[in-house]
Order: sequence, then structure tokens, then C-alpha cells
Amino acid sequence: MSDATSKHPNADVRMRGFAERITVEKALAWLDAELARQGTLGSETISLDDAAGRVLAVEVVSEVNVPNFQRAMMDGYALRATDIAKASADNAIPLEVVAECTPGQYHDGEIRPGQAIRIMTGAPLPAGVDSVLPVEHTTVVDEQVHAVRSLETGKNLGSVGEDIRGGDTLLPKGRVLRPQDIGVLSSVGHAQVEVVCRPRVRIVVTGNELLPAGKKPQGHAIVDANGPMLETLVARDGGVPHHPGIVPDDRDAIRAAIEDDADLVITSGGSSVGQEDHVPTLLAEHGELAIHGVAMRPAAPIGIGTLKGRLVVLLPGNPVACLWGYDLIAGRAIRSLGGRTKDWPYRKTTKTLTREIKSPVGRLDYVRVTIDGDQFEPVKSSGASVLSSTTRADGFVVVPTESEGHAPGARLSVFLYD
Amino acid sequence: MSDATSKHPNADVRMRGFAERITVEKALAWLDAELARQGTLGSETISLDDAAGRVLAVEVVSEVNVPNFQRAMMDGYALRATDIAKASADNAIPLEVVAECTPGQYHDGEIRPGQAIRIMTGAPLPAGVDSVLPVEHTTVVDEQVHAVRSLETGKNLGSVGEDIRGGDTLLPKGRVLRPQDIGVLSSVGHAQVEVVCRPRVRIVVTGNELLPAGKKPQGHAIVDANGPMLETLVARDGGVPHHPGIVPDDRDAIRAAIEDDADLVITSGGSSVGQEDHVPTLLAEHGELAIHGVAMRPAAPIGIGTLKGRLVVLLPGNPVACLWGYDLIAGRAIRSLGGRTKDWPYRKTTKTLTREIKSPVGRLDYVRVTIDGDQFEPVKSSGASVLSSTTRADGFVVVPTESEGHAPGARLSVFLYD
Repeated sequence: MSDATSKHPNADVRMRGFAERITVEKALAWLDAELARQGTLGSETISLDDAAGRVLAVEVVSEVNVPNFQRAMMDGYALRATDIAKASADNAIPLEVVAECTPGQYHDGEIRPGQAIRIMTGAPLPAGVDSVLPVEHTTVVDEQVHAVRSLETGKNLGSVGEDIRGGDTLLPKGRVLRPQDIGVLSSVGHAQVEVVCRPRVRIVVTGNELLPAGKKPQGHAIVDANGPMLETLVARDGGVPHHPGIVPDDRDAIRAAIEDDADLVITSGGSSVGQEDHVPTLLAEHGELAIHGVAMRPAAPIGIGTLKGRLVVLLPGNPVACLWGYDLIAGRAIRSLGGRTKDWPYRKTTKTLTREIKSPVGRLDYVRVTIDGDQFEPVKSSGASVLSSTTRADGFVVVPTESEGHAPGARLSVFLYD
Repeated sequence: MSDATSKHPNADVRMRGFAERITVEKALAWLDAELARQGTLGSETISLDDAAGRVLAVEVVSEVNVPNFQRAMMDGYALRATDIAKASADNAIPLEVVAECTPGQYHDGEIRPGQAIRIMTGAPLPAGVDSVLPVEHTTVVDEQVHAVRSLETGKNLGSVGEDIRGGDTLLPKGRVLRPQDIGVLSSVGHAQVEVVCRPRVRIVVTGNELLPAGKKPQGHAIVDANGPMLETLVARDGGVPHHPGIVPDDRDAIRAAIEDDADLVITSGGSSVGQEDHVPTLLAEHGELAIHGVAMRPAAPIGIGTLKGRLVVLLPGNPVACLWGYDLIAGRAIRSLGGRTKDWPYRKTTKTLTREIKSPVGRLDYVRVTIDGDQFEPVKSSGASVLSSTTRADGFVVVPTESEGHAPGARLSVFLYD
């Protein structure tokens, strides 16, 4: 027995199928421990223009008040409330309007008792006045403005720091930046922001039968579906995909590819225990093949390990298995490295099953389903090689390891693909 | 009375606040009728590399079978099932293995009765055999392979067109392309795809008090929050934002900006009925100001109209009002023009209210809330100018026009910001 096979976690199974597969739960426990060990990637400082959807690497504390001045919250007249304490519809009090103040304009002249400043929403409140009488509470007679209602002192003013106070924590570390966060960061004067680096993901698609995306299928060759799909998935999960092209089923070529510079490596194809399945043996020889074969359908011939301290996820070449293995393992790792939640990005809903789902105890099943109103059923023609089963599906359900499946009528959580 | 004010939908209210505001329901009905009139934008043909998340402009029908050949679905031996009909653990039948076949490789030699081909998953089935015996159902004695189980004819084969049949509709018009769709399109040989054009959205942020994003706030100037926020929102909804910079509160400058080339125009600031609110009067003069003032809080001073056949949405400058007005009106229009669902992109959940929400009948309220487990409450300090209320919030509830609000204990739908 060679060193290579002796390092294989299930060394006796080579060429005979997997004698034993570990449960999804154990595989995820191993993965999560490794992810905890690796933590999140380092940070980089980027322009606020590019920051939407990125993950804050640090807490953001405001250095400034927003606004840094008292301002009018209504269009009207800035005045002393005591000057019009007796104003009413029957007792209109004339205002001596001495100036006008629009946003961005500060009136710094003296304002005497009985005088008022015409003021627009957002304009800074001049010194010497204390309230804003809304224009609706005034009337104009012979071009003379009158107050027809009184108001409380301080009314219709926005205070210093009303939106944000200097020293306030604005956004927590780890925040995935939302549109309004970008607005708030802009308002406190941030031109740049420190975010977690995006995981660089090397996608290694192997298979002599594959033509690269963009070609027409011909003869006994098929066109690669997994590379373009994985690129899209990686980008969705905040990673930067790198997929320079199909890698031949050749040990040297595959080894060079999986040793490429990246934060995480995903391979597609050649992940099982056949003689052309070079990836697991290469990983076992040059790194650690920690997990190989997981009790689930599809994607049972998945592998997970490390090479040069980086995670390597070995996905099967069958495209449905590739998608599911990505979602279960690789996507989780990419999101974690990038400082995001490990949870799926799929929305979840509860629907009623109309057709039985069988699943043996001891195996976790990924079942593509179609939804019709409040009901759903498994898609027909759903083998691991039938990628169109995932495009015909509205979503999927997961039948846990310990479940035998579900009878019609069961209310289940469905994850949505839209 | 000038032509301008005579075209204003509520002509008597200029400078006196809005005498009357139409309901949100009526505003949306007008908007939806206009969106139905405009339909979706035209299409463009783009590389599959750039197609994730884009909207299909046409139904996609496959011109090819995937795969276009019968293939092995297991690692094992391709043979005639009748040759090993009597194989069992007690009656191992020797196989004459004459060749080997891996994916992408077609064996075109003659295969005689009793002979077998060693075959790998995905490899094309040679002529003359009809089934694949899995390697697990064989044994090797003195380098001679034996079948130790029989199997049905046709077993472990993937058929021609198993994934996709030529002529099948693969994806419907209007589909927002998912990762697996990209994979399927690649597998049928699509290098390009015809998608709905992304709406080009001119963002017109007005306000003499504003400094552009990237500056530090100083004096009585505040830094623009709405421009960067709107750019992010437009991109989220599938539009292409164009925001060349702050526009001064000047009629000519604003007119030039709102007449800029675009599929839709959003303005921020100067949307109300004050003397510095130039946008509504300009729109009334040069286009149609169909709606001005809507019975909701915040964002009551919103306007909607058309100019040169394009929608113009007038958002208030207060950033919370800007966000809400965008989400209610502008985002809906952008998604519709781009061929997407009008629904909000926010996930929805149901939680229990812990603090009363009051809202007058006749007005729709947008209430930012924080969630704690299964409960939620409105955020404190939530004026229309307090953008940080939207960054402190986990999401929002909408109190409909006809509701007086909700008492503690109510189970309500909460839209989530994450």
C-alpha cells in the first residue's frame, strides 16, 4: 500500500466504491472547525463607491455630528415663540420679516424681538430665534405676513446630532453594507471604508470529455456547465472566481491547478474513487484529504481537505451534484472566509407536500421541487446528471439524515431558488 | 395664474403646503398604468459570462440533446445483460475485458458476446453492449474480473437527451438568470444570451447645502447621503445609475439634468411646495406632474410624472423619505422597466409587536423596526431626516392607509433589510 492510499481517510475503498460514508453532520462539523481555525480573511480599504454589499472589517464610529447645526424642519418663519404667544386666527400677529434663509445659507445678522426670518426646510437656524412657525400657520394680508397660531419654543427644529452624534457607533463590524449604510457613511464624510477581502476562489474543472463554455456540444464531448455555474455561485457568495479553463485529466496539470494561488480551491469532476479520479489521491498525497464520501444524495463522492493551509473542496462532475455540493460545503466556506453568515442565501417558505418523498435513514437527500400555490412536489427526472432538474425547480427541500422521508400532506420548509 | 401652476395637479396649494394628498393606492394605480403603457425596455445580446442576474428577453429552446449519446452512469463494465443473467455471489461469471473507456473517449471496435469494456462514469457506451455492471458487483480473482450479480438490460445508463432534449423549452422569457441557468445555457452551447436592457437611471440630487460624497461635513453644509444611497438602490434593482454630481438649486441646471438621456429620472430634494422647490414646477411646465403629495409618512412631498415619455420620480431630500419614496415608487418602476417583478426585494417574516404603533386612518406609514427573537418594536428617534434610523433598523412594517395602527401583541409582516 502506497503512502498515497494510506493517507486516504477510507483507504480500503479505492476502486470498490465507498465502503463507508460519513454523515453530513460530521462533515459539516469538520468544516466548521476548520473555518473557525481559518477565521475571516484580512481587510482592505476601498472607495465607498464600491462598498455596497461588502462586509465591514471594523466597527464604524462617527467623528462628527449630523447635522452639526440646528436646522428648520418645515418651510416657514424662524422667530421667538414668545413673540407670537397670543397669535390665533382671531388675533393675527404681524411678523417683521428681515431676511430669508435657504439650506446651506446661514444668516448671521442680528435679529431683534418681533422680527422673523423666512426659512426653508433644512436651512440652519439663525442665532436669536428659537422656533419655526410653519407657513401653513401664517396668512398674508397686503403683503404683510401674520402669524395665526402660537407654538411651543423649539418647535419644528432639528437639533445638532439629531441624525448622528459624534462618537456614536454607526455600523457594527461584520455588517454587509446596505444602501442606507452607504448613505450614512457618506453623510459622516467617509470616502473610503475598510472591508473584509473577498475570497479568491480557484475553480478547477477537470474532464477530458469537456468542451469549454461557449463551444457547441459535438461528438462524444459535452460542454462544461459547472465552470460557468460555479463562477456565478462564487460571485453570489462574495468571492472572486478564477477559472482559467478546463484542466485535462492529468495528474501534473491537476496538481498545478490545485496549488494555484487562491484562498480556497474548488474542483469539479474526478472526485470519486475511480481510476481517473486523480483529485482525491493528489490531495491525499500533497495535503490532507480529511473527508471523502458523504452520506447524501446527490454529491456523495464529495471530498474536503486542505492543501498549503487552504481548503480544497472536491465536487463531483455531475452538475446537480456539483451545485448541491457547492451549496452545502463550498459556498458555506466562501461566505465564512469573507465574513458573511454561513446560512444559505435562499429565501425559505413553508408549503404542503403533495407526493411522497422517500429517503433512507442515514442519508441526507437534496430534493428539487416545484411549487404550485401553497403546494409543492418533487420534480420528475431528477438524476444527478440532469441539471435541467434544477432549472425546472422552484426550489428544494432537504430530507435530514435521520428521516425516512415525508408523506403527502406534510408541511415542510422549501428553500427558494429565485 | 401662470401656465405652470395651472398644470399642477393641486394648483391651489403652492406655498401653502399640500391641501390634499392622494392615497398611496391611487398613486400606485397611476404608476402601474404608466408602467403597463411603457412595458419593458428592449433587449441586447450579451456574453453568457455577464448574464447572471440578468432578465431573459426571449424564451430559450435547446437546439441539441444533452447528452447527445448514451453514457455510463457508474464506474464498472459495459456488457450485454443477458451474458451475466445467471451471475451471483455463488456463480461468479468471468468477463473478457477487451478495452477501457473513459469520458470523452469512444470505443468503436467490435464487441462480441461475452466480452466487456471497462467503463468510467460519463463515458459514451460503445455499440454492441446494453448495460453497465457497477464495479461493486464484480470481484477480481487472479487478475480475472468476474460478475457476481446480474442486472436488468439498460441498467446504469444515461440516455440521449436525458438532461435536455432538442426542442425543449429550457428557460422562459422573463427569467432572472440563476447560477444553474448559466450552467444549462453553457451546456447547450450558448455563448451569448438575449436579455432585457438594464434601465439607465439619471439620479438628480439637488441642494445648495450639499457637499458631494467623499467630502467631510463642514460649516452649515452637509454631505450628500442620497446620491450614493440611490446609486446602490438602482444597481440592486437591476438599473444602471448615472449620478454625475450635485445639481445646484437653479432652474436651468435642474431642467438640463432632468432632460438628460435616460430611461427614468429620479430627483432628490426640492420636491415639495416651497419656493426653492423647483423640480415640481419644472416638471409641470415641461412635462406632466401627474401626482404631487401622497398621503403617507414619510415622503409625503413626493411627485411622479413624465417628461419626454420617461418617468420622473421626485423624491424628498430628507434621506429616510428618499429611501422610502425610492422603495415605494422608483424601485418599482426600475424593476418593471427591466422586466423584473414589481415586488420588493426584501425578505418577509412574521413577528410579534411589543410597542404600540399609531397611524391615522387615511395615511400609510413606513415604520422602521428592530427585531429581538420573535418580537419587534419601532425604532426610537425616527424622523424623516434621521437616516441612521434605517441603519439601526432590522427592517420595516407598513401600516396601510385604512389602518389606525397596531396594539402590542399583533402578529405582523416585517420586511427585512438584510
